[in-house]
Amino acid sequence: MSALSVFPVEGLPEVRPGDVLADLLAAAVPLLQGDVLVVTQKVVSKAEGRLVPLDGDGAHRALVESESVRVLRRRGSLVVSETRHGFVCASAGVDRSNIEDGWAALLPVDPDRSARRIRAGLRARTGVDVGVIVSDTFGRPWRRGLTDVAIGCAGVAAVLDLRGTVDTFGRELHATQVCVADELAAAADLVMGKATGTAAAVVRGVDPAWLRESSVRAEVVRPPADDLFR
Amino acid sequence: MSALSVFPVEGLPEVRPGDVLADLLAAAVPLLQGDVLVVTQKVVSKAEGRLVPLDGDGAHRALVESESVRVLRRRGSLVVSETRHGFVCASAGVDRSNIEDGWAALLPVDPDRSARRIRAGLRARTGVDVGVIVSDTFGRPWRRGLTDVAIGCAGVAAVLDLRGTVDTFGRELHATQVCVADELAAAADLVMGKATGTAAAVVRGVDPAWLRESSVRAEVVRPPADDLFR
Repeated sequence: MSALSVFPVEGLPEVRPGDVLADLLAAAVPLLQGDVLVVTQKVVSKAEGRLVPLDGDGAHRALVESESVRVLRRRGSLVVSETRHGFVCASAGVDRSNIEDGWAALLPVDPDRSARRIRAGLRARTGVDVGVIVSDTFGRPWRRGLTDVAIGCAGVAAVLDLRGTVDTFGRELHATQVCVADELAAAADLVMGKATGTAAAVVRGVDPAWLRESSVRAEVVRPPADDLFR
Repeated sequence: MSALSVFPVEGLPEVRPGDVLADLLAAAVPLLQGDVLVVTQKVVSKAEGRLVPLDGDGAHRALVESESVRVLRRRGSLVVSETRHGFVCASAGVDRSNIEDGWAALLPVDPDRSARRIRAGLRARTGVDVGVIVSDTFGRPWRRGLTDVAIGCAGVAAVLDLRGTVDTFGRELHATQVCVADELAAAADLVMGKATGTAAAVVRGVDPAWLRESSVRAEVVRPPADDLFR
């Protein structure tokens, strides 16, 4: 397996509701066939107009409740809940960073669809097929620190299923399903400073076998019946 | 922020108890000052002799129990438990893949120490300072698919603390602690096929500000009192 390069997309303008992200991204970075473009949720939500004014002190809390289908834990101002998409995260993904004061950004309604739309737009404008991942920053139980994960994807595997392949000792690998979409989102975050507001990055050199139709909702979200922690 | 490159360490021999990993790694890959070398738990455990014979049908299960300080969930043959290190993972990290039949590998006793030892060995042999991460493959609640995370590190930040810095709108970032060690482990896994048994990878080009003393146990393992899911 050969090398990957991971680099930030520089010079993306401040994104506004109604902007066509594929146009802005195609203008900002020369893409090659097989690249994976990771775009942060924040700019996808902005382009899709998923911005809500916060009127008054309790507005953020009320918004978090209305974006949640189930609250798993509360402590002080921290709410860990499940969203309509099936994601479990803090504040149901409602976010106030890198956005104008008095406003909050909600998650895209369907982040897989957002990724498909960006992918189709890039193909139309540039003629190249790229994988697209919409990423967000989630906490997790048991481990400190946040990491970026995939909340939507198109044209690149979300989960790679290695069951049935054998290890170097010839024994079949069991239970080896790798969430490459989350690993790609994490790799992209390494070149995007949280404070500088870089909103996209390219991962170049991924295994061409990973480039296929996919969906975070279908492949990554664990159905409650399979979940030991819900 | 500039580009990262991520590439596998090829040609590492099959590792045996007593092998000095720093020697094998230094011979296998030319390292540059500031590189981060990600080494999988499997070869660290082999070099450190953390191999146990499995005698009989119940041996694996008994080993998982003895490596666990607390079991969080059981379902069929799946056990999710907490290890002495404070990691929560399947089978307490006891692993039978990429190892001879009839044997299991346990986690290193102190993976931060393992990382420090590799780092010191590489400095002694090559004269360059690198960051070292010992990685393992963990599942997680709510999301399907496994991802690689850091279980030990040396010379590279585990958690980057961005609290106190401001976003592009001049507002202070809250609760933004990024687990770059896990993101580096994830990036490295993208170039290491599970089946091919590649056991190490290099991440080149990380922000020099991340290169400092560190520890997964001190920075990443969430104390039970702070943990809403334990």
